[in-house]
Amino acid sequence: MQVELITIGDELLLGFTLDSNGAHLARELAAIGVSIARRTSVGDDGPAIGAAVREALARTGAVITTGGLGPTSDDLTKPSIAAVFGRGMRMDTEILEALRARWIAKGWGRELPKTNEQQALVPEGAAILTNRHGSAPGIWLEDDRGRWVAMLPGVPREMRGVFAEEVLPRVSARAAASASAAGASGSAPVVVSRTLRTTGIAESALADQITPIADQLGGLSLAYLPHWPGVDLRLTAHGLAADAARARLDAAETAVRASIGDYVYGTGADDLAEIVLNRCRDHGLAIAVAESCTGGLLGSRITAIPGSSHLFLGGVIAYSNEVKATHLGVGDDTLIKFGAVSEETAREMASGVRARYRADAAMAITGIAGPGGGTPEKPVGTVCVAVDVRGALTSAKRQMVGDREEVRQRSAQWALDLLWRRMAETAQVARP
Amino acid sequence: MQVELITIGDELLLGFTLDSNGAHLARELAAIGVSIARRTSVGDDGPAIGAAVREALARTGAVITTGGLGPTSDDLTKPSIAAVFGRGMRMDTEILEALRARWIAKGWGRELPKTNEQQALVPEGAAILTNRHGSAPGIWLEDDRGRWVAMLPGVPREMRGVFAEEVLPRVSARAAASASAAGASGSAPVVVSRTLRTTGIAESALADQITPIADQLGGLSLAYLPHWPGVDLRLTAHGLAADAARARLDAAETAVRASIGDYVYGTGADDLAEIVLNRCRDHGLAIAVAESCTGGLLGSRITAIPGSSHLFLGGVIAYSNEVKATHLGVGDDTLIKFGAVSEETAREMASGVRARYRADAAMAITGIAGPGGGTPEKPVGTVCVAVDVRGALTSAKRQMVGDREEVRQRSAQWALDLLWRRMAETAQVARP
Repeated sequence: MQVELITIGDELLLGFTLDSNGAHLARELAAIGVSIARRTSVGDDGPAIGAAVREALARTGAVITTGGLGPTSDDLTKPSIAAVFGRGMRMDTEILEALRARWIAKGWGRELPKTNEQQALVPEGAAILTNRHGSAPGIWLEDDRGRWVAMLPGVPREMRGVFAEEVLPRVSARAAASASAAGASGSAPVVVSRTLRTTGIAESALADQITPIADQLGGLSLAYLPHWPGVDLRLTAHGLAADAARARLDAAETAVRASIGDYVYGTGADDLAEIVLNRCRDHGLAIAVAESCTGGLLGSRITAIPGSSHLFLGGVIAYSNEVKATHLGVGDDTLIKFGAVSEETAREMASGVRARYRADAAMAITGIAGPGGGTPEKPVGTVCVAVDVRGALTSAKRQMVGDREEVRQRSAQWALDLLWRRMAETAQVARP
Repeated sequence: MQVELITIGDELLLGFTLDSNGAHLARELAAIGVSIARRTSVGDDGPAIGAAVREALARTGAVITTGGLGPTSDDLTKPSIAAVFGRGMRMDTEILEALRARWIAKGWGRELPKTNEQQALVPEGAAILTNRHGSAPGIWLEDDRGRWVAMLPGVPREMRGVFAEEVLPRVSARAAASASAAGASGSAPVVVSRTLRTTGIAESALADQITPIADQLGGLSLAYLPHWPGVDLRLTAHGLAADAARARLDAAETAVRASIGDYVYGTGADDLAEIVLNRCRDHGLAIAVAESCTGGLLGSRITAIPGSSHLFLGGVIAYSNEVKATHLGVGDDTLIKFGAVSEETAREMASGVRARYRADAAMAITGIAGPGGGTPEKPVGTVCVAVDVRGALTSAKRQMVGDREEVRQRSAQWALDLLWRRMAETAQVARP
């Protein structure tokens, strides 16, 4: 079964907003074995919406749209798609009453404005997709040949909710039906991917190790996806039945891990920060950070993980040298002799924050993110990190490529990587 | 002149990567008055690439693609698009020699692998778009009717470089030519947008203030774009000549600012962190931060701005209560009586970091980002911020909506907003 996604809005088309809605839907659908044929973004333009939906329906008969359901004049999704199906619009009194009740309950006024009433207009013969997260309901429109369009709101929180509650069950049922129609249940060809996330190794070095075992990949396609967190390896099975695809992926994953497993920190969308926190929990380590060039980014990555407060105590953003000296205890000698960007300084930052914040383990980062501040000896991209696990210090220095934000992101990832490896090495260290 | 963008890659189609390349190209093209008709993403699939390009050419005659130019077997862009133009492929010896030289210079080996040689295959009759940032050159392919496709690499840094150096000049020249063909130079209709960025006011409250002045917008379309940094207002002129569009936008911007200017912190892609830093520079204020629920996010926003080291000293990530007490001097009484999430605690955090880090101004944030940790009195989303400018304290409490990451992002933005307003109010405060 194939689906096309169409995301609607001038802000998307013009690049002011990244299409996180489309990405979310694509991942969710792929996870249930539905393949995405194509993704399209069009602006707030009735004819353009209609044309994109008509073409997508002709290709797959199954389309999900986001955006353009609100009350403002640029919200054109419903009438444009109704026209594609040759349907008119009708006022849904139930939706209208719900909108009025919500308007009054929110204290926005006594009477729903006329412009907002149009949110209650729906295509004739459409099913309503209840929105428990906002005011604009979603719409399911289907013709007698079984071709359908699901229209979701554009606000991400609402879109995710309506999709999970109202659309995913319908699509899953259809995917199962189309699979069983295609043959014995579960034997219809699917496209299934598996991603192994690596860090601390370059794409070319990964390829050097994997190329010799290419014949063990069972004909699966292998993509190298370099990002700032590292290089993701994606194995994809095309055109196999679901069970066979899974078996082939299992075998290929085993072969790849045998070759480069030391660099694999997770699968899918795993976040190294969460994996480090889990390992800290296993080792009974409370952690702290000391950050110079990353300026809080490492702390932010860690605290983005729900529940991190059980293990993360806090840290020092030591952007100025005075803060490094006063609040981390980095020696003036160290700063003068080796400089603020040096392994020596990174080590004293890590030890300093560990001791002062009474943590078991600490990470420290100092570097030159650029674009200014580089010297011939320490060009932009020079970064030092250090890790202190119960007094055992490790540090390293690296020359990174990329712009300011890439250097910062890679530095934070590298510090996490160093702690992750250090904990693996010191797995035997008993809790005091 | 209209262009379509087609971004190529399974990782995009399946939502593992957000389409930042497409967004970048859309913004760059809009800035020179080229409108984007549609954006499409397809996977690493030759027939799908060919179909998408053929359809886009039929609509606009002008297409830019990204991705699929590398040496691996899933890089199918060039042959697929060559087929659309009815062209074969030829080996370009100049590119081949450059690839070999680069391979050896990088120390990757003595001989370029066979698979990498295919990067030197180009469609017959194509122009080469030099890539000074990586190995895969871009391709410009054009037919005798003037319909063209520019193929760019998928690595963002390389894509941006090749686009700026090789594609933008060609597209600008064509846009100018098509404008002058359409009438007197500069009078061809364009689509031009201007964005005003607001924070600290809800979308509905903005609409209440702007709706009464709708007749002063000169017929321009107005879009409300809510994001976590606030609500962007985008004014767009369609179908006017460039000069007339600019004049109309100027007039509408003046009218909007007269109505809601207190909430407008910038235009376009302005970042409030940068605007706050600029105001700090004007006021001679060195700043520090104290962060609980944001865990470093505010510091990270500030230090993402090049040159922030001149004004930003550092701060304390005070995730645990012990860190709040020991390293910021928040009173145990305060923590017991009012709790860690209270205006009282936020104020002591701000004053504490300002004094200890010898800053002129400080921001502090404490809150419950969720999903856990909420109570009936302080539900998830309760956030307190405080600002201390040379001893003058301000604080506030808010109930935010959204998930953990939204609450954190909005909290950091809110703290910046509070300092920004506070500096405006205390513009008269002399530097000590």
